[in-house]
Amino acid sequence: MIRTTVAELLGSNNFLQDVTLKGWVRTFRANRFIALNDGSTINNIQCVVDFEKTDETTLKRITTGAAISVKGTLIESQGKGQSIEIQVNKIEILGDSNPEEYPIQPKKHSFEFLRENAHLRVRTNTFSAVMRVRSALSFAVHKYFTENGFYNFSAPIITGSDAEGAGEMFKVTTLDIENPPKNEDGKIDTSKDFFGKMTNLTVSGQLEAETYAMALGKVYTFGPTFRAENSNTTRHLSEFWMIEPEVAFNNLDDNMDLAEDFIKSVINYVLEHSKDDIAFLDGRYNQEEKTKPALQRSEMTLLEKLNFVVENNFKRVSYTEAIDILRNSKPNKKKKFQYIINEWGADLQSEHERFLVEKHFKCPVILFDYPANIKAFYMRLNDDGKTVRAMDVLFPGIGEIVGGSQREERLEVLQQKMAALDIEEKELWWYLDTRKFGTAEHSGFGLGFERLVQFTTGMGNIRDVIPFPRTPQNAEF
Amino acid sequence: MIRTTVAELLGSNNFLQDVTLKGWVRTFRANRFIALNDGSTINNIQCVVDFEKTDETTLKRITTGAAISVKGTLIESQGKGQSIEIQVNKIEILGDSNPEEYPIQPKKHSFEFLRENAHLRVRTNTFSAVMRVRSALSFAVHKYFTENGFYNFSAPIITGSDAEGAGEMFKVTTLDIENPPKNEDGKIDTSKDFFGKMTNLTVSGQLEAETYAMALGKVYTFGPTFRAENSNTTRHLSEFWMIEPEVAFNNLDDNMDLAEDFIKSVINYVLEHSKDDIAFLDGRYNQEEKTKPALQRSEMTLLEKLNFVVENNFKRVSYTEAIDILRNSKPNKKKKFQYIINEWGADLQSEHERFLVEKHFKCPVILFDYPANIKAFYMRLNDDGKTVRAMDVLFPGIGEIVGGSQREERLEVLQQKMAALDIEEKELWWYLDTRKFGTAEHSGFGLGFERLVQFTTGMGNIRDVIPFPRTPQNAEF
Repeated sequence: MIRTTVAELLGSNNFLQDVTLKGWVRTFRANRFIALNDGSTINNIQCVVDFEKTDETTLKRITTGAAISVKGTLIESQGKGQSIEIQVNKIEILGDSNPEEYPIQPKKHSFEFLRENAHLRVRTNTFSAVMRVRSALSFAVHKYFTENGFYNFSAPIITGSDAEGAGEMFKVTTLDIENPPKNEDGKIDTSKDFFGKMTNLTVSGQLEAETYAMALGKVYTFGPTFRAENSNTTRHLSEFWMIEPEVAFNNLDDNMDLAEDFIKSVINYVLEHSKDDIAFLDGRYNQEEKTKPALQRSEMTLLEKLNFVVENNFKRVSYTEAIDILRNSKPNKKKKFQYIINEWGADLQSEHERFLVEKHFKCPVILFDYPANIKAFYMRLNDDGKTVRAMDVLFPGIGEIVGGSQREERLEVLQQKMAALDIEEKELWWYLDTRKFGTAEHSGFGLGFERLVQFTTGMGNIRDVIPFPRTPQNAEF
Repeated sequence: MIRTTVAELLGSNNFLQDVTLKGWVRTFRANRFIALNDGSTINNIQCVVDFEKTDETTLKRITTGAAISVKGTLIESQGKGQSIEIQVNKIEILGDSNPEEYPIQPKKHSFEFLRENAHLRVRTNTFSAVMRVRSALSFAVHKYFTENGFYNFSAPIITGSDAEGAGEMFKVTTLDIENPPKNEDGKIDTSKDFFGKMTNLTVSGQLEAETYAMALGKVYTFGPTFRAENSNTTRHLSEFWMIEPEVAFNNLDDNMDLAEDFIKSVINYVLEHSKDDIAFLDGRYNQEEKTKPALQRSEMTLLEKLNFVVENNFKRVSYTEAIDILRNSKPNKKKKFQYIINEWGADLQSEHERFLVEKHFKCPVILFDYPANIKAFYMRLNDDGKTVRAMDVLFPGIGEIVGGSQREERLEVLQQKMAALDIEEKELWWYLDTRKFGTAEHSGFGLGFERLVQFTTGMGNIRDVIPFPRTPQNAEF
């Protein structure tokens, strides 16, 4: 008999059919009712054991976490809480789970405890829901871009370039660090390294993606990127997945349209395809919010937040307007901000972004046209000579979820900006080539995938939305 | 007027409509006919310039590689070679391309030359076709697994474990290598490193994927993996993308069924969705084959090879049968093999795999039940005590494209095998936990994505199917 999944059965009303199921025991009560889960859905299926016909040794081995195989008949349930159940004819224990030792018991575990058991935490309702939603979001990303004429592009992970400028980098080497080969001058001979020079882990695939956009038109990357910064926060990871679309002939307005349409589309996909998981996470989120002091509590449920993003236009605000709003804001005047906004040119901190999004506009905000000197060299200079065509998308509770720009397509301007920042042209000769040969305006952005998952699942800590988080002092598993 | 793409227009017969197109000049002949490409398809669209109404300076700037914007009218073409064309009303040069300097001229360039210009090679027909097919295959992978109930799982890239056993690893560090912190005993103090210990780049996400399969049922990874081996061949990369499905409750037969169905499905997707690119690559492949000596020439065109894989069953052969075939084969008896097969237990070399696939069976082959001592510790031991439930899928021209196995689910057997190989249990405590708590039979495999792209596009060198290849001594861009 072919094995079926719980997800398949729960959608079925083909009663009296014989089924075979394999999965893990979530709970077993009254020596009779097994809640069986096989990962295909957040929902368990109730399997009813006839304990009089089942030997006692087997009954004792039906413990939380045990893997079992069940043959039985699908029937309408007489009990509350489920419409169908399985009347078990035969049960087999595939793998035991000693209740004295198994860390994941049917009770509330702290997220800290579960992080230390990241190999087992996906066996809980919360983490299985988060990871299924993460998977659905991932597919939605590929689907959106494919249906909109984009080509997926694999940016290199190991890079010989250290001029990407987006953050601190990890070194990659095969040299014997205890006893490295040396030059005559006593320095390490990097020509003996695997790639014949020093290499790093990428912080962004953008520069390479630009070379592909200038040939294929619309491309996107979706891969891991790395930051060696000592940030121990609830929204930073040392290793995270980034989505970076890059489009030839797009200006900054097109770029904002793309970012907004993209985010709405992938959230919509999850609302449609991950109903049960989102419903569970909505309940969890709302429970957690209730434990917070009234002032910190979210005004919306998770589902309301997701629907709000999908249904409302993102507010587009220039940096200059934002500075005016912030300067005249209550927390600025009352000196409640840690960093007081005095004048145009200030770099915005997380507290300012959150004020704009959560208190002032109360919706996702796109800030654009930032001062040139607080943004990267490759962003297109405006005619005012002091701002660049940069944009950040800010989300409630998350802060910056997207950073992007129209790129500087004029060779001379780009060269001047690189010179001013001491970026050597020979480091980026290939990047400059895109401006020498058939240059054109183009734009793109980067979206941190885990921040999107965090927002969509309502999880408070980014370490809880990636299977095995890497953070300072932590690379277990 | 909204910009359209060449792909959209070539499917249109909405004549006399006004259109705006942006793209790059592939060729310009007779001061009149521009072949314009925008990356959306391998096909160019012909734009006909009225040279009498266009100023000479502009005409001179229409050179290969220049970015232009064209406004005009879509009309039926009177010329040969295309059914539609654009009668240009207005042309604007967006970015020049000096023909004296632009490396990509409309002539045949060697693949070696193009590898040195990997940032520009995607502007050629061959590489744009390869990269679009790569993108289509990538989407087909996600689509197949999503539609078959799998969840995408992000395996960690930086790993604290060096027991994955699949190959040589790259070290990842933030220590100052010139001047590293030392312990009292003069050794490097790795506790001062970013993660508080030595870390490496992953060679496989399998072990972590197994922990997820034992909760979500069916999972797959699709991410970069790394091998620090000094292999300078046409089928090895130091950085490559790997697809690794892992399924709870699957045995080796299920695993073979999955591998075969999966490969057929993704190739079918490309045959259906990338017709123009595959047709172009088929022509290129067949031309190239003609330049080879008759004996080395492929008996099939690229399209025939792809259809053959989709339409025929993979031949399943045990290692023991394969050894018998090889031992009695002509090249073995005539000592034409570099490694003569004398007895059961020999590790198969590429020459043997190619003989089986290309000469003996003439179809994709799945070899299974290999000797335990030439395979990894986590493969399930058969009752004979000397073979394991391993499988390799071998493809014509490529060799091994998939390696997989049923995993050893019995805790004691796994512990014995690890002990025999001096793998410390504390290194893989979390992996052993999956066997302690709710263990069950499960299986999976790894498929090197670039080998799949190589097979599907007919490209001879794996460096030509990934945007920026990383190989020994080479991490440019």
